[in-house]
Amino acid sequence: MSPTGDGIPFEKPEFSRRLTLVKKEMERREMDTLLISEPSNIYYLTGYEAYSYYVFQMLVVHRDLDEPVWIGRFMDAVSVRRMTHLSEKAIRPYMDEYVQSSERDPVDFLVGQLREICPTLKAIGTETGSFYYTAMTHTKLLGSLPNVRFVDAELLINWIRICKSPAELAIMREAGKISNAMISDAIEAAKPGMRECDLASVIYQRMIAGTSEFGGVLPSSPTYLLTGSRSGEPHAPWSDRLIGRNVPVNVETSGCRRRYHAPISRTIFLGSPPDSYLRLSNAVVEGIEAALAEVKPGVTCAVIERTWQATIARHGFQKEARLGYSIGIGFSPTWGERTASLRSSDLTVLEPGMAFHMMPGLWLGENGVTITQSFIVTETGREDLTTFPRQLIIK
Amino acid sequence: MSPTGDGIPFEKPEFSRRLTLVKKEMERREMDTLLISEPSNIYYLTGYEAYSYYVFQMLVVHRDLDEPVWIGRFMDAVSVRRMTHLSEKAIRPYMDEYVQSSERDPVDFLVGQLREICPTLKAIGTETGSFYYTAMTHTKLLGSLPNVRFVDAELLINWIRICKSPAELAIMREAGKISNAMISDAIEAAKPGMRECDLASVIYQRMIAGTSEFGGVLPSSPTYLLTGSRSGEPHAPWSDRLIGRNVPVNVETSGCRRRYHAPISRTIFLGSPPDSYLRLSNAVVEGIEAALAEVKPGVTCAVIERTWQATIARHGFQKEARLGYSIGIGFSPTWGERTASLRSSDLTVLEPGMAFHMMPGLWLGENGVTITQSFIVTETGREDLTTFPRQLIIK
Repeated sequence: MSPTGDGIPFEKPEFSRRLTLVKKEMERREMDTLLISEPSNIYYLTGYEAYSYYVFQMLVVHRDLDEPVWIGRFMDAVSVRRMTHLSEKAIRPYMDEYVQSSERDPVDFLVGQLREICPTLKAIGTETGSFYYTAMTHTKLLGSLPNVRFVDAELLINWIRICKSPAELAIMREAGKISNAMISDAIEAAKPGMRECDLASVIYQRMIAGTSEFGGVLPSSPTYLLTGSRSGEPHAPWSDRLIGRNVPVNVETSGCRRRYHAPISRTIFLGSPPDSYLRLSNAVVEGIEAALAEVKPGVTCAVIERTWQATIARHGFQKEARLGYSIGIGFSPTWGERTASLRSSDLTVLEPGMAFHMMPGLWLGENGVTITQSFIVTETGREDLTTFPRQLIIK
Repeated sequence: MSPTGDGIPFEKPEFSRRLTLVKKEMERREMDTLLISEPSNIYYLTGYEAYSYYVFQMLVVHRDLDEPVWIGRFMDAVSVRRMTHLSEKAIRPYMDEYVQSSERDPVDFLVGQLREICPTLKAIGTETGSFYYTAMTHTKLLGSLPNVRFVDAELLINWIRICKSPAELAIMREAGKISNAMISDAIEAAKPGMRECDLASVIYQRMIAGTSEFGGVLPSSPTYLLTGSRSGEPHAPWSDRLIGRNVPVNVETSGCRRRYHAPISRTIFLGSPPDSYLRLSNAVVEGIEAALAEVKPGVTCAVIERTWQATIARHGFQKEARLGYSIGIGFSPTWGERTASLRSSDLTVLEPGMAFHMMPGLWLGENGVTITQSFIVTETGREDLTTFPRQLIIK
């Protein structure tokens, strides 16, 4: 990768390897064509990362074509040329009259292109659960291609993405270094009496500036910064109210580099935590350490989560939500891969190159503690993506 | 609204008025039930703004029920209770086992709830083009409710949202003040030799900290910061490459307050622009002034765009893309409302309370100029949401 964090993120052979894996799975599922709407999957196969998916775009993979074909808005084609190895014939832009118009539908443009570029068009796979493949697009496609068999390809590429290459892991380590710096800055800045938004701005400043070695870009989820009685609301925004004394400040955030994430959460307690709260945080720390110690190839997601539950149960606690999820490439609205979850019903077996965000948290009434760890599964165990100590921070 | 930018964003009568408008349109389209998946529309009807839409959630409006019913993940119900006027019986959370699971589908939970809470279930409207109403959800719903008529309700609420109330406009003015401060900070910080990411971090710091009067939150689109030869890529991310000398720096961004936006773009030229570039920027300035002068109730979007085209044509330029779009509430991935566009084919008639981001830009080879204006349509003309001078900034 270029040292300035731009240019095409991976070499051609890396993209070829990925395309081969996708085509193999297409063959297994008996589809000749695959329509890719999820921006993370388009990025995975091409390197294209411009923020253009709020309008219609699609990447077409056909088993008999050497390269994927990008279909999108004309003004974004210039970014496709710079960011990807695609040849000119694989870049098929539509004009602006198709954008959010009641008169023209870009699906018609797509169908015309499919007929032109696809050697066969018998069975098309679509990502039916993707945020960027709407019910309207699906209905229109079904009606426009009545003799084509539609096959569900939801998460097809996401499950291939779950094992990362060395080149991908190298970028995730860079994201992790930015995450470390963000948490350090947050701890240094946090104090009672400051507005929540001012503390959030310190975190964003570091997130974007990154380190002196490499800069950051915007992650695919917002930072959650929750103080005092709000610490029990996992997805609420901050506001301009003042941070109190003797309250927890929960921060969940992530550095982002070339669309790869390494999330981290920590609780900063401003003041003196009561004993009940310290018992809570001790249970979280003991639980995460026990669960992390289980991580190695061959172990299931379920086993890891059960270890966490068993450990906190000894302290009299239990947690309803899943313990974590697979991470890597992320585009809004989420940095999760939507595949494996660390939960008792998930029998996914860990393999080297997988990466997870383990995010234990416990709440006692309104007050919560959250101490999380992003990690890679290695040949022998795990490698942590962030190095910040796993403990309650008292300030 | 509470001065600290939290609490329920509007009073009960404001939400009741909105619900009445929606029910009236449901009646006209002969639907008894409306399923709302677009986060902006959920916010519009309830005030709920937590970032939970990356998992399944739905707001159900039934013509015979006094209040909408929220269906979402259990851990977010606590935010619904704080952020909305909804009563406890209108908050219907599902447990975590439904989240991104291959075994359980939250659509089943939704269907169960619909049967329980809806007095009738004959015709259901769905937002078929919403990013958060996937093809998979739609297919499953159709199969689960075979005797129900499905009606397209795409953009139904978006078109109601297009005219803002005084309470909404007050918040948009606050967002505009944050936008002003962001552009001022960017101009002060920009200099040749600095990393793009460091300039972006200055903008983000101000975006989130806001002003001393009111803080900001994260807008629904990223900031676009494009320098030098990249200025022709409208949706590319910044990187850590160094900003050159005698190059344009294009910034497109927005302050955000309570999910309301007031976008702004400016070009900062670092050094001495060549004459050809100054002619470009003069055309943009003349074009935007001519187009803005046309804004008043009764005029169509088309007339405004044609005025812009006619003005720049006198300078020998033309622009393919639309000139702007309706703005207001935004959730990722866009701050546009996806309704009216300032383009020659859009015959939407301007009314008081509408708001737009007019975004003219022109490119000459790789170098572009963009100077934009967010405004409200008033009884007699327009009110600008940002007050930054409409000119090329030379530094």
